[in-house]
Amino acid sequence: MTAGDDAAWMARLRERILAAVPEGHDVPELARFRALQRDYPARGGKGLRGRVVLLAAAAHGADPEDALPVAAALELFQNWVLIHDDVEDDSETRRGEPALHRIAGMPVAVNVGDALHVAMWRTLIHTDAPWRNAVLAEFLDVIERTAEGQHLDLSFVAEGRFDVTEAAYLRMIERKTARYTVVAPLRLGALVAGVDPDPRLDPAGLALGRAFQIRDDVLNLLPDESGAYGKEFAGDLYEGKRTLVLARAFEVLDASDRARLRDLLGRPRAQKRPEEMREALDLLARADAIAYAQGVAERDAAQGLSGLRDAFSAAADPTAAFDLLNLLTGLAERHA
Amino acid sequence: MTAGDDAAWMARLRERILAAVPEGHDVPELARFRALQRDYPARGGKGLRGRVVLLAAAAHGADPEDALPVAAALELFQNWVLIHDDVEDDSETRRGEPALHRIAGMPVAVNVGDALHVAMWRTLIHTDAPWRNAVLAEFLDVIERTAEGQHLDLSFVAEGRFDVTEAAYLRMIERKTARYTVVAPLRLGALVAGVDPDPRLDPAGLALGRAFQIRDDVLNLLPDESGAYGKEFAGDLYEGKRTLVLARAFEVLDASDRARLRDLLGRPRAQKRPEEMREALDLLARADAIAYAQGVAERDAAQGLSGLRDAFSAAADPTAAFDLLNLLTGLAERHA
Repeated sequence: MTAGDDAAWMARLRERILAAVPEGHDVPELARFRALQRDYPARGGKGLRGRVVLLAAAAHGADPEDALPVAAALELFQNWVLIHDDVEDDSETRRGEPALHRIAGMPVAVNVGDALHVAMWRTLIHTDAPWRNAVLAEFLDVIERTAEGQHLDLSFVAEGRFDVTEAAYLRMIERKTARYTVVAPLRLGALVAGVDPDPRLDPAGLALGRAFQIRDDVLNLLPDESGAYGKEFAGDLYEGKRTLVLARAFEVLDASDRARLRDLLGRPRAQKRPEEMREALDLLARADAIAYAQGVAERDAAQGLSGLRDAFSAAADPTAAFDLLNLLTGLAERHA
Repeated sequence: MTAGDDAAWMARLRERILAAVPEGHDVPELARFRALQRDYPARGGKGLRGRVVLLAAAAHGADPEDALPVAAALELFQNWVLIHDDVEDDSETRRGEPALHRIAGMPVAVNVGDALHVAMWRTLIHTDAPWRNAVLAEFLDVIERTAEGQHLDLSFVAEGRFDVTEAAYLRMIERKTARYTVVAPLRLGALVAGVDPDPRLDPAGLALGRAFQIRDDVLNLLPDESGAYGKEFAGDLYEGKRTLVLARAFEVLDASDRARLRDLLGRPRAQKRPEEMREALDLLARADAIAYAQGVAERDAAQGLSGLRDAFSAAADPTAAFDLLNLLTGLAERHA
């Protein structure tokens, strides 16, 4: 697989993802149920995690064809988790359109996520590929870890705590995002190739995954001039989401600024007015917190990429490994 | 396995269920996360579905010991589905205590359900038993079907429709309840024994499962003098739940009573006062709808039990088959 035929692979991956939930049903309500399960996948995310699986499999010497169901399952995981995350955070939009629970209601959206969760397992269980057991075990671990990360995140919210430490924030995003975005796809690529994952993949993948999430937090607070980011500007402030930017601001601001920031962010979402969120942004700027987070992301990205260059220095397919590192570089330094 | 050592088996089943989520964690928030996952299982449901798996396995000639992980997984399924159902219906109580989302909040409860869903798959995937593939396939089917039934139920609610037909109601409960409560446990018992499930198990199990759910609907509308039922009295009316009792009432009441009933049930839950729900109960009594539903449940129970007696007439273990039929008789004619 070379960078040149990337579009063709993405089309095949997308087809494979949607094949997990067939269209239509004799019972009209159940046809609608399937359409709702296909909604997020059909919105066409970037397919980043699936692409990492395909390239990592190729780099380890496997035919990426063999990795397609695994890549599709990981994208299905991403989609059901997003449905539930959007419910849990009461997000407004996803991929530039209303979040599913804002279309279908919270109860229906939770159940649609559950059905897509089952479709994910079906994709992995209904195969007799030699990698099946190892891949199933990896999915069990990554989903459990992701749920733990989500719980840490939700615990901060439930306690009304904004002054989370940098260490607690990093522990949270390693579990919630970094593992399933980078570590698991790299390891899954190895497993499809029948290779024991190199132990260097874990720390390097975690560092890259942290960079990816921190860049996401930063992007959320920068004006989206190109429209490519596709999420609500400063939506994280409206949602009261804990980010490295906030952790840094609470560390360096003086007591009165901290109290004001806590007050602005702690209000119920419906009572947050745009001018107040602009004031919160000004406080973050005073702490130079966005630039600080950007610096951490760059350091983590460099560390992760360096670790992966080592791990893939003797790759079975050096071209695929080169493409993989390029993709991950773009991911860690994402601009959208 | 005889009826005499039932309590010992139930203790072992319960232990096996709780073993799926170990207690404690180095990170205090994650210790709390695990405690929340263990909450519903530790409340001690009746373990009916697990008991059916164990007895069905024995009746098909298997050692019930071999069926323990399957029985535990089915109970874990029941528990994560209940967490999500309680969120979706905004139920107040479960097994006599507050519903999980009323303790931990909706966002945390959705995520706890997801984690328990993964624990269920872990129980089935981490085994090398000869039944593994067949049992995994059965779980995929029953969970998908249950989610479809839940979607049908939620669709009625979302459309504000109370005048659901008896046929639509029965289609809904066959998917939402009957399959995972009776059909799947019976089939899983056969699969653990390495036997192809008898085709008569499906229609008989569906009939018994319908009886079980209709009895549940009826019990919800009868005063709970013993306290054994453990759910909120007439909670279904507060929740606006569609039941056979309502379907019947809307079929036989005159236009003015129908309009009044629709008005009483259609209000937001917080605006429903006890005297209004008593008025709704009076309208159901006028339609003789509770007695009608009870009659349907009795007919379905008789039909289902007769089908199962046929299917188990040459059981490998007649004593276990006898115990199984006794258990299912009690289940279909449940008084709590």
